[in-house]
Amino acid sequence: MTDSPLESVRARYRLAVGAEAAAARAEALRYEQTVELPPEAVSDPFVEKEILPRVEALGPAAGGGFELVLAYPPGVARAEPASLLGVLFGNCSLQDDVSLTAVELPEPVCRGLGGPRLGSAGLRRLAGVPEGPLTCTALKPVGLAPDALAELCAVFARAGIHVVKDDNGLADHPFCPFAERVRACQAAVERVARETGRRTLYAPNVTGSPAAVARQIDLAGALGVRAVILEPMLVGLPLLHELARGERELALLAHPSFAGAPRIAPEVLLGTLFRACGADAVIFPHAGGRFARFDLATCRRLGDALVGPTGGLRPALPVPGGGMEVERVEELLRFYGPDVMLLVGGSLYRAGAALGERTRRFVDDVRRAAQRLAREAS
Amino acid sequence: MTDSPLESVRARYRLAVGAEAAAARAEALRYEQTVELPPEAVSDPFVEKEILPRVEALGPAAGGGFELVLAYPPGVARAEPASLLGVLFGNCSLQDDVSLTAVELPEPVCRGLGGPRLGSAGLRRLAGVPEGPLTCTALKPVGLAPDALAELCAVFARAGIHVVKDDNGLADHPFCPFAERVRACQAAVERVARETGRRTLYAPNVTGSPAAVARQIDLAGALGVRAVILEPMLVGLPLLHELARGERELALLAHPSFAGAPRIAPEVLLGTLFRACGADAVIFPHAGGRFARFDLATCRRLGDALVGPTGGLRPALPVPGGGMEVERVEELLRFYGPDVMLLVGGSLYRAGAALGERTRRFVDDVRRAAQRLAREAS
Repeated sequence: MTDSPLESVRARYRLAVGAEAAAARAEALRYEQTVELPPEAVSDPFVEKEILPRVEALGPAAGGGFELVLAYPPGVARAEPASLLGVLFGNCSLQDDVSLTAVELPEPVCRGLGGPRLGSAGLRRLAGVPEGPLTCTALKPVGLAPDALAELCAVFARAGIHVVKDDNGLADHPFCPFAERVRACQAAVERVARETGRRTLYAPNVTGSPAAVARQIDLAGALGVRAVILEPMLVGLPLLHELARGERELALLAHPSFAGAPRIAPEVLLGTLFRACGADAVIFPHAGGRFARFDLATCRRLGDALVGPTGGLRPALPVPGGGMEVERVEELLRFYGPDVMLLVGGSLYRAGAALGERTRRFVDDVRRAAQRLAREAS
Repeated sequence: MTDSPLESVRARYRLAVGAEAAAARAEALRYEQTVELPPEAVSDPFVEKEILPRVEALGPAAGGGFELVLAYPPGVARAEPASLLGVLFGNCSLQDDVSLTAVELPEPVCRGLGGPRLGSAGLRRLAGVPEGPLTCTALKPVGLAPDALAELCAVFARAGIHVVKDDNGLADHPFCPFAERVRACQAAVERVARETGRRTLYAPNVTGSPAAVARQIDLAGALGVRAVILEPMLVGLPLLHELARGERELALLAHPSFAGAPRIAPEVLLGTLFRACGADAVIFPHAGGRFARFDLATCRRLGDALVGPTGGLRPALPVPGGGMEVERVEELLRFYGPDVMLLVGGSLYRAGAALGERTRRFVDDVRRAAQRLAREAS
């Protein structure tokens, strides 16, 4: 095993320290994230060469503090989500002076993790939308019974929404059991497909223990469901990965609940790592909604992390949402381009009895704006 | 389903807002954590009563900002780790103005989650230490081969350490496969037990996907292993819970890697939630080590959250560590009392060739200090 620079996982950290402490802090972090020993207690040459990360750069950061780039040898930074996340930010998540601002995964690690199984293209195939922006909304609120949610599902499907997902709060509740909900909602999109000839992709929310999620996925699959949404930071990033590498071909939409991670840049966790671990699409708040941390620059980096070239990984579809208003359709398409899925929830629900009409207008607006922008570009 | 106050999950949040914005921010959080809809879009009476949390208190917080107590009805805050964590802090983990400072789980939720299966008492039984403080150390560094780790394991076992755990960085590496490591280390503690008549409890680190963890646990169990260490925030809190409720009786030691959660008080995540989800012992950094966030007041609350009366849950054993020096034994025992396991790693390894001797002194120091404190108290 050779620590070729091409095979190292590179991580950039921001250290909230002054110049006098920076070198020592960088040195401490090298040991903290791998061997967890004082330097004088490490003598094994394999450990020094194949385990301890190298300091590739250390210098003052724009905006204060110091910027550190560590290159983790392939011996320690492996293509396995739990272990990789632990090496990158496990112990130092408990140290408030360290932030993780960028991660670069080399090709062997990307290949090992595998990334999106379907990716944007596969999700488009399942949704029957070969090109142009997709539209998405959520079934909510938690508390409604399966029939009520299925009725909403039918309204959205008739209005031409491409993907209808469960809200992330929908679990296997006694008042809305997973099996009944999924049966009713999947039946609703199929009924509408027979009426209109256009099939909306329904994505139920799977959550709970690994065994519960496996049961939910089996059940949903048996009912003809081809996509699910899940919250990797609640159920565990390794479970996302296990599902992506599993036997069942299923589009995996990742939701950012609990992903406001300890001082990890959103584009690293929701972008690089969610994609590398197998998310086919990633939902995240776009700038200007209810989530201030997601400014335009962050959203740009996040979008790029999902679709840019990364070690041969398939692109994952960016799904900006988080309180987007239907009036912002054109702005969003200008920002992300046509390879995007626009998620709008509350802005539709606010229409009350006019939900179907407002949804249809949203779908039309997206189509027209995309055509307009395509003409502009050509 | 009645929302009796006795059945609500109570969560206390700190809102980083001024007086003029506090009421609106509290109201927005009620909706964000449950229905994710604008208030005007929520009309269902069941949702209003059984899903939306009630504001139980809202007032200025000591130290600035506002303190909010929400009571989540049993309809939405359930005895399931992923869903419960999502309700308590899922979406708002992405909102930097909200911190979760306390959680109170009612008896039905505690009963539903089940808590530690063995708890302190069961772990003591497995370690053969009916009373008084336990001692613990870690096999490290990652990078050593199984034989080298097993040799360390034997040194620690001969020195009388009660529990030897794998370092949290030890995964299923090619240079140290899980199966070989566990076989060698378990054989080492059994060999020493035949020599000395005293059996050290060896706890391998299990990590990876849920399926990989299940395989590792089966393999370890077949080799006679009775305890494991795992990192719930890397592998997923629901996996900890699934293991605690599974068929195999196994002591579960929880490690805090990646648990420097987004603005959640350590005592809430590592204390209340790790215990409720089934950790028999919880490792955390004690004040004065390498983790500044853990001051004495935090450690006191964390210790209390692990052992105090909580809805009938068995106590979990506090395992302070994180850079403790052997010289601090008495201080630690004064702080936590005798129902504790002291974890010391680097401070032993620094002894180099004198590792066994220094470990024996550590074990003796703990025993003598405990006797001294017991005499003082009587």
